[in-house]
Amino acid sequence: MTWSIGPDAIDDLARGAAVLGTGGGGDPYIGALLARRAIAEHGEVTAVGLDELPDDALVITVAMMGAPTVMVEKLPTLESIIDPVRAIGAYLGRPVTHLACAEIGGVNSTIPIAAAAVLGLPLLDADGMGRAFPELQMVLPTLSGISASPLGFADEKGNVGVLQTIDNSWVERIARVAAVEMGCSVMICGFAMSGAQARESLVRDSLRRCIGLGSGIARARTDKLDPVTRVVELLGGRELFTGKVVDVQRATTAGFARGTATLQAVGAGDDRDLTLAFQNEHLIASLGDGVSGDEVLVTTPDLIVVLEHDTGEPITTEGLRYGQRVRVVAAPSDPRWHSPAALAMVGPGYFGYDVPARRFDGTTAEGVSVTGVPAVTA
Amino acid sequence: MTWSIGPDAIDDLARGAAVLGTGGGGDPYIGALLARRAIAEHGEVTAVGLDELPDDALVITVAMMGAPTVMVEKLPTLESIIDPVRAIGAYLGRPVTHLACAEIGGVNSTIPIAAAAVLGLPLLDADGMGRAFPELQMVLPTLSGISASPLGFADEKGNVGVLQTIDNSWVERIARVAAVEMGCSVMICGFAMSGAQARESLVRDSLRRCIGLGSGIARARTDKLDPVTRVVELLGGRELFTGKVVDVQRATTAGFARGTATLQAVGAGDDRDLTLAFQNEHLIASLGDGVSGDEVLVTTPDLIVVLEHDTGEPITTEGLRYGQRVRVVAAPSDPRWHSPAALAMVGPGYFGYDVPARRFDGTTAEGVSVTGVPAVTA
Repeated sequence: MTWSIGPDAIDDLARGAAVLGTGGGGDPYIGALLARRAIAEHGEVTAVGLDELPDDALVITVAMMGAPTVMVEKLPTLESIIDPVRAIGAYLGRPVTHLACAEIGGVNSTIPIAAAAVLGLPLLDADGMGRAFPELQMVLPTLSGISASPLGFADEKGNVGVLQTIDNSWVERIARVAAVEMGCSVMICGFAMSGAQARESLVRDSLRRCIGLGSGIARARTDKLDPVTRVVELLGGRELFTGKVVDVQRATTAGFARGTATLQAVGAGDDRDLTLAFQNEHLIASLGDGVSGDEVLVTTPDLIVVLEHDTGEPITTEGLRYGQRVRVVAAPSDPRWHSPAALAMVGPGYFGYDVPARRFDGTTAEGVSVTGVPAVTA
Repeated sequence: MTWSIGPDAIDDLARGAAVLGTGGGGDPYIGALLARRAIAEHGEVTAVGLDELPDDALVITVAMMGAPTVMVEKLPTLESIIDPVRAIGAYLGRPVTHLACAEIGGVNSTIPIAAAAVLGLPLLDADGMGRAFPELQMVLPTLSGISASPLGFADEKGNVGVLQTIDNSWVERIARVAAVEMGCSVMICGFAMSGAQARESLVRDSLRRCIGLGSGIARARTDKLDPVTRVVELLGGRELFTGKVVDVQRATTAGFARGTATLQAVGAGDDRDLTLAFQNEHLIASLGDGVSGDEVLVTTPDLIVVLEHDTGEPITTEGLRYGQRVRVVAAPSDPRWHSPAALAMVGPGYFGYDVPARRFDGTTAEGVSVTGVPAVTA
């Protein structure tokens, strides 16, 4: 299916992307601003479904890399969005034919729209994760053996670089320190792949899923229905917790926004706090005092989403504030994230948490439901 | 003049380069090893004088970037030497015709010989500084308006990058953090220039000057003459201090070897200590207790050279050890380093020292001889 992304779709798309961004991927307000401006100046963007993509297409993914805490203060320029795409085209010696989103998030689903508008290129209705993750190599194409190199990066000042590394983790390491030096956020593009590779390795229909989520939230509000319940239905997830933000510990270190948020239970039943540990994205949701003996409810790679209590508006990790009344939703990630190789790349252990991966429904990777698991030790 | 650099010239060249390296630029033993191995495997290297260089040549400079303390422990591979040259040739879309040394130093005058041997390219008898300086933009071509970009960099693991930045300081900033992440040293190449630009902006006859210095030291030893006196004559400098190393403070931080060395006076006359402040290279030589009211004798950009007392062997900053008996020589740098623009780039103030630049003969930039100058405050 080929369709056109116009200005009217942007707000829904950005809001839905912020839901799937699980706290990261950038602020949807800023993402929507950028995409609307690019469409107003350069025209609507053609979205192409994976089934319509020619096998010999040259697809690259486009994203913003850096700490979301900085992204909200430093808007990228349209030039810095297209500079790395041009650099990669020159490096490869042939023109890029299609752009794709590396991840889903308030900014990282809308930046590629802006890039596609300015460059006059079609954008795939697909992405590399089906959610957001903090590190560059954490995409399904890595699991399919697709190289992140050559990777282009650029800042808003006009500095541009191209990396060709021995594996996708080295791209992350070098691009991350460059991004920190260049002002804590850069635009990147890479993971050049053919149409056939894109069909195999990307998550399909991502943009329409975002629009469906965003418009679902908006329509529930109009219809005086509960938007959070609508999100749970659309994600096939479950509501995990209702509470009030009582503490947020946050530090922007090594190019990431890392921290924890403590939510105090509101209402009847279990009165334990919920602790959310995040690195750009929410990684672990656990019940208890946040120190030891906590009960881990859900972990990466499944989705942990924080929504404003009444409106269902997604709240990014950098948007968490004392006193917010929120509801936490857990939902399944793309099934490919539960393979052993994927869990080694994005499971709790990679981020320093000595707990087994726990799915959105509370089961472990082996499908066993457990309670009273080990403490979060990171 | 066009001549051939064979294995017999390497030891003298590396030793002489370490003298002009003023403590930095890498260890001459390691530099000589690399160059000899490359010549043995790939043949001798043609050295080309600036007067023989065609106007339409494509010259690039080659160097190792990083902390010398790490360079002595991590030898570059021949592949990592040629990877950035190939990347720049591909980026520019035309073949590099000549290599040049970015700076003079035990490794940074011999690495380009190794690169020239492997690539089968001629090497200019010239360099970008006439000495060594710690940061990438600190070359005379920067003062001539030549861009360091595109700059190629590569590590021994096979990771390669190309930077295109808005000015030469941004190349330094981004390449430096990449170098630190890639193991604290990388091979770099950049400053692409025409033959005409090379003739205007480079220091001429550098390699023959190094060989003359190195062989002068060796011949003085054979002839039972004083090698240090010979170095002073060849550099047109003066002997500044004779003493014993009694303290070395050294830290490898942010990709540099920074520190101070204290030398205790030996012999008659002034019994004050000499303090050498360095960042890879010696920057300031001052008499006193190293705290306040010191008398600054010589500063960057002129040359401060530490030689072993009897043999005249140059000692790099990472080679300084307690108890070494040494002599310190001061000598003039290329006159272009004394322009106001140059002093802003490489003078004491740039490195955080609130003192006027002091030439090798004790005069200030205005030619005034002074004593009792302000304290070194950095």
